[in-house]
Amino acid sequence: MKHGQDRPLRELGENRMVSRFRELTAKGLGRGVLAGPGDDAALVRIPENRLLLFTCDMTVEGVHFRRAWATPRQIGWKAMAANVSDIGAMGGEPGFAVASVAAPGEVTGDFLDEIAEGLMECASRYGASLVGGDLVGSPGPVVVDVALTGWIAEGLALRRSGARAGDAVLVTGALGASAAGLAALRQGLSAEDERVGAALTAHLTPCPRLVEGQAIAAAKRATAMMDLSDGLAEDLPRLCRESNLGARLQTSQIPVHPSCRAVAELLGLDALALAVSGGEDYELLLTCPPDAVKEVREAVAAAGGVSVTVIGEMVSEEGVVTVEDSGLERAMGAGFDHFAVSG
Amino acid sequence: MKHGQDRPLRELGENRMVSRFRELTAKGLGRGVLAGPGDDAALVRIPENRLLLFTCDMTVEGVHFRRAWATPRQIGWKAMAANVSDIGAMGGEPGFAVASVAAPGEVTGDFLDEIAEGLMECASRYGASLVGGDLVGSPGPVVVDVALTGWIAEGLALRRSGARAGDAVLVTGALGASAAGLAALRQGLSAEDERVGAALTAHLTPCPRLVEGQAIAAAKRATAMMDLSDGLAEDLPRLCRESNLGARLQTSQIPVHPSCRAVAELLGLDALALAVSGGEDYELLLTCPPDAVKEVREAVAAAGGVSVTVIGEMVSEEGVVTVEDSGLERAMGAGFDHFAVSG
Repeated sequence: MKHGQDRPLRELGENRMVSRFRELTAKGLGRGVLAGPGDDAALVRIPENRLLLFTCDMTVEGVHFRRAWATPRQIGWKAMAANVSDIGAMGGEPGFAVASVAAPGEVTGDFLDEIAEGLMECASRYGASLVGGDLVGSPGPVVVDVALTGWIAEGLALRRSGARAGDAVLVTGALGASAAGLAALRQGLSAEDERVGAALTAHLTPCPRLVEGQAIAAAKRATAMMDLSDGLAEDLPRLCRESNLGARLQTSQIPVHPSCRAVAELLGLDALALAVSGGEDYELLLTCPPDAVKEVREAVAAAGGVSVTVIGEMVSEEGVVTVEDSGLERAMGAGFDHFAVSG
Repeated sequence: MKHGQDRPLRELGENRMVSRFRELTAKGLGRGVLAGPGDDAALVRIPENRLLLFTCDMTVEGVHFRRAWATPRQIGWKAMAANVSDIGAMGGEPGFAVASVAAPGEVTGDFLDEIAEGLMECASRYGASLVGGDLVGSPGPVVVDVALTGWIAEGLALRRSGARAGDAVLVTGALGASAAGLAALRQGLSAEDERVGAALTAHLTPCPRLVEGQAIAAAKRATAMMDLSDGLAEDLPRLCRESNLGARLQTSQIPVHPSCRAVAELLGLDALALAVSGGEDYELLLTCPPDAVKEVREAVAAAGGVSVTVIGEMVSEEGVVTVEDSGLERAMGAGFDHFAVSG
């Protein structure tokens, strides 16, 4: 039953959409939710002896997605995934989320339902619960903003500022699949090619490294961690700045995702440049003493996580990231900047 | 020192704006903030033996404000105030906030700084702390979305669903000042007239009824509560629906704000219609048994709150709001609907 949700937002009105949002979210409300959507604020029970993590991430049509390329369910998933990734990058456990959506009046109720379903699907996959929201009819692009709380035991949270000179620099998984997916969409590559399909999946429905982040924090050997949301070329310098250090990368050690290599070959692009300057991989970037690398890797493997690769080391020369290869050095200077690309 | 923040967002870039946001928020970080803006997520210490409240409210240029009418500081204040009001309407205490802003590339750093300052000014006024944010360069209108947590002791939260037939219906303060302020802006009335000025202040920098909401919850006599964000004509039917009841209003008892009467007279509008169908007053609407009215009023007065007025009673006829006056009945059907007005 469609409940007439194929009608546009401007006809459906706020009360109806709020009721619909309550219906949809009701099934996904986790333990501890005493009041979900529909009141002035959600009311939830929180774990004892934990610190609260709190993050938000806004996704804007035309900047982060296009309606022609992503389904509303994918838009919702990715908006939630970016937040889960932030909680994971601190080593925490996701808790409760609220989501605000601005949408033009011609957007249908079904479109909004599917965004909500995508948000909830991702939340539920990572143990979070969508407990509230706001919806605004807007003259502008579709905007989805998610705020997510999380929990972590005192002393476990991994910040960007804790790296020490001599620490190994590591990344989880492999890089560049999301950037390759974006390039494939721009060039209209067919998803029938399995390697292209993998890149599209990575770009449209990324999987944040939550178990990995939690395992790394619990092992208590890492010194700093963050997620790769804007790409290594942008994010590693940030970690360096926060830790008042620099880094030296071994280009040959950077794990490039097979789908990135494949798409780069099809499109005549430089796979390594895509891997370091492309954003939205949502892999983790972390540092730990060289003698802790084995332990960190084993902790992640024991949690069922992806591989972890050493790609370089932290050095005392502040703010300078050096690489072996001059082509890569250029790529490292070309990270994603929201304003430069979209202003 | 202006730090070159008079330059447009598209030139300033994300890293600079993040640094700037950290500088600005650093002074406002309250107790318990172990990590504020600048990491993947904020890390904060939370009170024990409390339930968590969680809400979000999105503000969109062209729907909720115009840059020609509101300063960025006012835009920020009001975006935060709407959230504080939601926490107050549950009876809670505001905690930590995150704010996401989408803005076109031509907006200056100063404009964004002032939004942040307005957000923080309001947060600080009501005991909240801005601990994180996101900023996106967007092709569309300025969007400010705030998510706010709060705290409340178990058993104290006041929901919309608890009203009982025979309960008195009450509102805090007086209604219509915000709607009058909006009408004054639309018609270009001069703020030099003191009564117009009061309406403009109510519209641009509303003061949520936080101490009132907390005092009402702590008195444990109210049965239901919500804030008047969309106007009595929209919000009372919602409270009725949640409680499976109706309401009978005494038109003559509805407290109309003096500035609303003044602006209505200047513009030839119906003051009562503005008061019941205008939104964004952020007064509280609540119910309690008739014999508890005195106690509720005294609790609010003891907390230094505004007056509380009985405007009617809850009746068992489900979903029907009756009023004494047929002109008002028409007004009650014309509440603010975000989609109808902006689609």
